[in-house]
Amino acid sequence: MKTMDQLFHALLQDVYYAEKELTKALPKMAKEAENDDLKEAFTNHLEETKNHVQRLEKAFEMIGKPAKGKKCDAILGIVAEGKEVIDEVDDADTLDAGLIASGQAAEHYEIARYGTLCAWARQLGKPQIERLLHETLEEEKKADALLTKIAEKSVNQHAAA
Amino acid sequence: MKTMDQLFHALLQDVYYAEKELTKALPKMAKEAENDDLKEAFTNHLEETKNHVQRLEKAFEMIGKPAKGKKCDAILGIVAEGKEVIDEVDDADTLDAGLIASGQAAEHYEIARYGTLCAWARQLGKPQIERLLHETLEEEKKADALLTKIAEKSVNQHAAA
Repeated sequence: MKTMDQLFHALLQDVYYAEKELTKALPKMAKEAENDDLKEAFTNHLEETKNHVQRLEKAFEMIGKPAKGKKCDAILGIVAEGKEVIDEVDDADTLDAGLIASGQAAEHYEIARYGTLCAWARQLGKPQIERLLHETLEEEKKADALLTKIAEKSVNQHAAA
Repeated sequence: MKTMDQLFHALLQDVYYAEKELTKALPKMAKEAENDDLKEAFTNHLEETKNHVQRLEKAFEMIGKPAKGKKCDAILGIVAEGKEVIDEVDDADTLDAGLIASGQAAEHYEIARYGTLCAWARQLGKPQIERLLHETLEEEKKADALLTKIAEKSVNQHAAA
């Protein structure tokens, strides 16, 4: 039966798997995006995501465990829904709107998980890990807010035109 | 190839499926919760969730489509991870911390999806649907914030003790 430390470790593995999946999905999303701001947002977030992977590797090191992912069905579902949009939508503006929606679903999954990891790290007396992952949490929130801004600024108007 | 209206309809079906899954998962989560505030939060959110299902049915009616769900792998993944916690954790306080984490992952999935649905409804000139789903969005955000409050107030301290 799992302890709080083991739950923390399992969630770290879940998020590590999710971030690695996103390093594979984001280049495709950047390639498919038509809107320049959106393309740039996905490209920049790919670089941030690579950094999030490294931060998680540091967190594994700090708890004395090997950096290893654990299959995360939630992120696989979110990425699969995003692929469906890419396959089924032809119009560039509509595709951009769909890509933003998929991106925001992924961001919110991560916001939820990093929020939990930070809270648990604090409670478990791991302030260094909390600080490290809090940086990632803030970047995920900013990435989500940027996608909202891009959607409101132009993409959705074009898509619904 | 899908239009923006069809994407909106497909996302409505996705969220309808997700909400219905949550009406099945929440009673189990309420039953497993040890902390009284947490038990009450899940029980109250079950009632809200039933209302969210009804609002989605109204939205389907407004676009002249039958209320019908479409398998949502993301929510199935989130619910499956929650079940794993229930199965693998014995200690009541640790279980509560895990239940909160699962609940917040579900809330954030919905926050992302209702955010998108509201933005798309606005762009597609469906202000009534936007207003309707915005009520749900606000309730999901409040449910998430309440889980954070319960976690910070007592659950995580007990779980890490």
